[in-house]
Amino acid sequence: MRKDVANLKYVFNPKSIAVIGASDNPAKLGNVILKNLVDGGYEGKIYPVNPKYEKLLGLKCYSDIKRIKGKVDLVIFAVPSTIIPKLAEDCGEKGVRGLVVLSAGFGEVGNFELEEELRRVVLKYDMAMIGPNCLGVMNPAERVDSIFFPFYKFGRPNVGEISLVTQSGAVGSTVADLAAYYDVGFAKFASYGNGATIGDADLIEYLGSDPKTKQIIVYLEGTKNGKKLLDVLERVNKKKPIIVLKAGKSKSASEAAMSHTGNLAGNYLAYQAAFRQSKVIEVDSVVDLFYVASIFSQPLPRGARVAVLTDGGGLGVLAADSLEKENMKVVEFSKETKGKLKKVLPQYVNVVNPLDIVADSGTETYQKSLKILMDDAGIDSVIVIILFQAPAVDSRIIDVLVKESDRKKKPIIVVAVGGEYTKENRRILDGYGIPTYGCPKSAVRTLKKFTEYSLFLQNKK
Amino acid sequence: MRKDVANLKYVFNPKSIAVIGASDNPAKLGNVILKNLVDGGYEGKIYPVNPKYEKLLGLKCYSDIKRIKGKVDLVIFAVPSTIIPKLAEDCGEKGVRGLVVLSAGFGEVGNFELEEELRRVVLKYDMAMIGPNCLGVMNPAERVDSIFFPFYKFGRPNVGEISLVTQSGAVGSTVADLAAYYDVGFAKFASYGNGATIGDADLIEYLGSDPKTKQIIVYLEGTKNGKKLLDVLERVNKKKPIIVLKAGKSKSASEAAMSHTGNLAGNYLAYQAAFRQSKVIEVDSVVDLFYVASIFSQPLPRGARVAVLTDGGGLGVLAADSLEKENMKVVEFSKETKGKLKKVLPQYVNVVNPLDIVADSGTETYQKSLKILMDDAGIDSVIVIILFQAPAVDSRIIDVLVKESDRKKKPIIVVAVGGEYTKENRRILDGYGIPTYGCPKSAVRTLKKFTEYSLFLQNKK
Repeated sequence: MRKDVANLKYVFNPKSIAVIGASDNPAKLGNVILKNLVDGGYEGKIYPVNPKYEKLLGLKCYSDIKRIKGKVDLVIFAVPSTIIPKLAEDCGEKGVRGLVVLSAGFGEVGNFELEEELRRVVLKYDMAMIGPNCLGVMNPAERVDSIFFPFYKFGRPNVGEISLVTQSGAVGSTVADLAAYYDVGFAKFASYGNGATIGDADLIEYLGSDPKTKQIIVYLEGTKNGKKLLDVLERVNKKKPIIVLKAGKSKSASEAAMSHTGNLAGNYLAYQAAFRQSKVIEVDSVVDLFYVASIFSQPLPRGARVAVLTDGGGLGVLAADSLEKENMKVVEFSKETKGKLKKVLPQYVNVVNPLDIVADSGTETYQKSLKILMDDAGIDSVIVIILFQAPAVDSRIIDVLVKESDRKKKPIIVVAVGGEYTKENRRILDGYGIPTYGCPKSAVRTLKKFTEYSLFLQNKK
Repeated sequence: MRKDVANLKYVFNPKSIAVIGASDNPAKLGNVILKNLVDGGYEGKIYPVNPKYEKLLGLKCYSDIKRIKGKVDLVIFAVPSTIIPKLAEDCGEKGVRGLVVLSAGFGEVGNFELEEELRRVVLKYDMAMIGPNCLGVMNPAERVDSIFFPFYKFGRPNVGEISLVTQSGAVGSTVADLAAYYDVGFAKFASYGNGATIGDADLIEYLGSDPKTKQIIVYLEGTKNGKKLLDVLERVNKKKPIIVLKAGKSKSASEAAMSHTGNLAGNYLAYQAAFRQSKVIEVDSVVDLFYVASIFSQPLPRGARVAVLTDGGGLGVLAADSLEKENMKVVEFSKETKGKLKKVLPQYVNVVNPLDIVADSGTETYQKSLKILMDDAGIDSVIVIILFQAPAVDSRIIDVLVKESDRKKKPIIVVAVGGEYTKENRRILDGYGIPTYGCPKSAVRTLKKFTEYSLFLQNKK
């Protein structure tokens, strides 16, 4: 691993952070970032740097990075692009190990020389740099957070197992915000923007060796080194699932990507071939990045034989349609399972898969039926479609699902379509590691990708 | 129109409602329904019927429908199936015009004779019957509501233009609940279950002539009369868009549908041919039913030339990808429009479509750019992708969008991906008739269907 890449540990786990361009003006990034570090509960040393101030948010403010007496692991830049290479040189001399350069105004607007100058300085000192032109990093476990979005607009994910690598700050932040909403945790977040020194492949490689990271989400427009990316994807994906969204597939999109981070989006077919060869999980929408990553909180399915359990008939029918469309198997229940189910279900319930226990069935019927399906070795995954609107289902259904999920016998995923009350219940379930989906189709598409990855791992052995 | 179908006006706009099987036990449907009518603010006469009680919820309770002195327009049944034909006979004699039979236990569990008996009685008196085995009806304008789901679990949509016809109560209620959450209004809701007398085609025909209904959502498993359905779809869809989700496409799903409402799902290819011939809008997921219906709050687009405006670069790139995939046109801006945009945008913004005004652009940049795109006759629709997480965008963006949308020059649709704060803003926009989507892909797919319908109407002329 390149020395600067290894130094990413100082970016994600710094013992001290300096904010160059810290400010008391709430309209400035340097204010928001400093405030977010303080309010977010970062426990290391925080050094605001700005010659204009003596103190900021109760912290001593420094005129210059070199005036700081202690060690500085990470520096976050919130100053105009043109002065950054010079300041980075100071950082190098000071022994700083990590830089996050949020500022725009580099390659993406044609200032390639400025970006090259910055690159040279950074590599000279082996500093790990995220950026420029990015949102930077988060490490919820350490409360490291360089995102200049206010807490009330952008929810911070809790501590978890998903790490995210993104060229686009917008895409990265929306996925993280979704995860926060559903209480799905993150290990690391890196929005690398132009990726002048450290880019997609470096970050994926680093996170591949990060013990806290169990799944990696990647949003990509263009890469600087396709061969290296393919190599890293192949190696890391065998250890940890990589979920990729490649944008800039079309001509107009590719042009937009160019003006976005100064990277050519390249020929999509080449990317697609690389994704197929490395068996990473490719998705085609932002929400699918989140949906697929969150399903990995469940144990891997052995195969594609699925049971559907529901109290809302039509939704079960739709799930069966989607399963057949995706070449998943709507398994026929064994005689034994049918017999067991008949004992616990009302007489008028037709014991077939999808199993519709009907809307006046309550939580106990759910519990008994689910247990039977979980104990059947002929079933690889169970999709539970709950009509939270129905009066017979009460909040004990959460306990039933959590209890079965905790047995870790096979994946349980939940579908619940609806408004306020339904969404609240979804959030609770996701918080307990039971992934939920807002329509049967999304759930099935996600389960399909989960199953394919599981089969890939099995075949590899 | 058949006499009983014409009598649907008494089901949707009754001046008086009797609830047979009303109860004071909160666990009984007859209690929930009565309570929902009272609490929901239904202003007509309400007659609880149950020989066990003198009074219920402060209302005089009747032992028998015939004991009610005044006229009864609609009767809602919440009693066991076996006694319903006899009670329906009483209703016929009493001059009741509409029945909603919520009770299950008819054709869907093999009791075909009982269903046939009920059918004969109902048709003898030309009563309009919804059901049996259904959730019944809602008419938000009149506070008519037979849904036995509690208010806190199932949000009731406000008054609006969408009407929904569904074989499955679960699917219908989840779509309505989604609509309520996003503050998108409904005209009429009908969950017809087994559809013993009045089914899909009858309801669509009736709503086709209902002046309050502007769009019709249909969820269908199987129909009793394919030819009639095709005929009605063709006629009504020319006046009002019909959005259809057909379930039971696959073998296992078709079997599940049979045990659900006692109707065969039939050969999907025949349905598909009918949908194509009638040019109705077919969708393949529950949420798309809602997404497509809600886009009709915007004016019809003249063509497929789309502009994308965003402050979140990557999301714009993804929208462009989806547009090209769906054969929509990511229009190249005219020289004039480019010139105008350059005047209002910061120099570093690359003036291309998708137009990324970058995350530090505030509401005013949005406002000026949007106005220019709305005034360009070479653009048929505008997709605005807002990164609500970014600090520069404030709540005035809502006013900007509402003002432009109110000019009704062309459709504006909004994409916003994220958590709590983003969802709140989406709900506000949807409430103002600006449809919002949780990812670029859904927005583009919906806009595509909207555009196709618009082109169908234009070609028809």
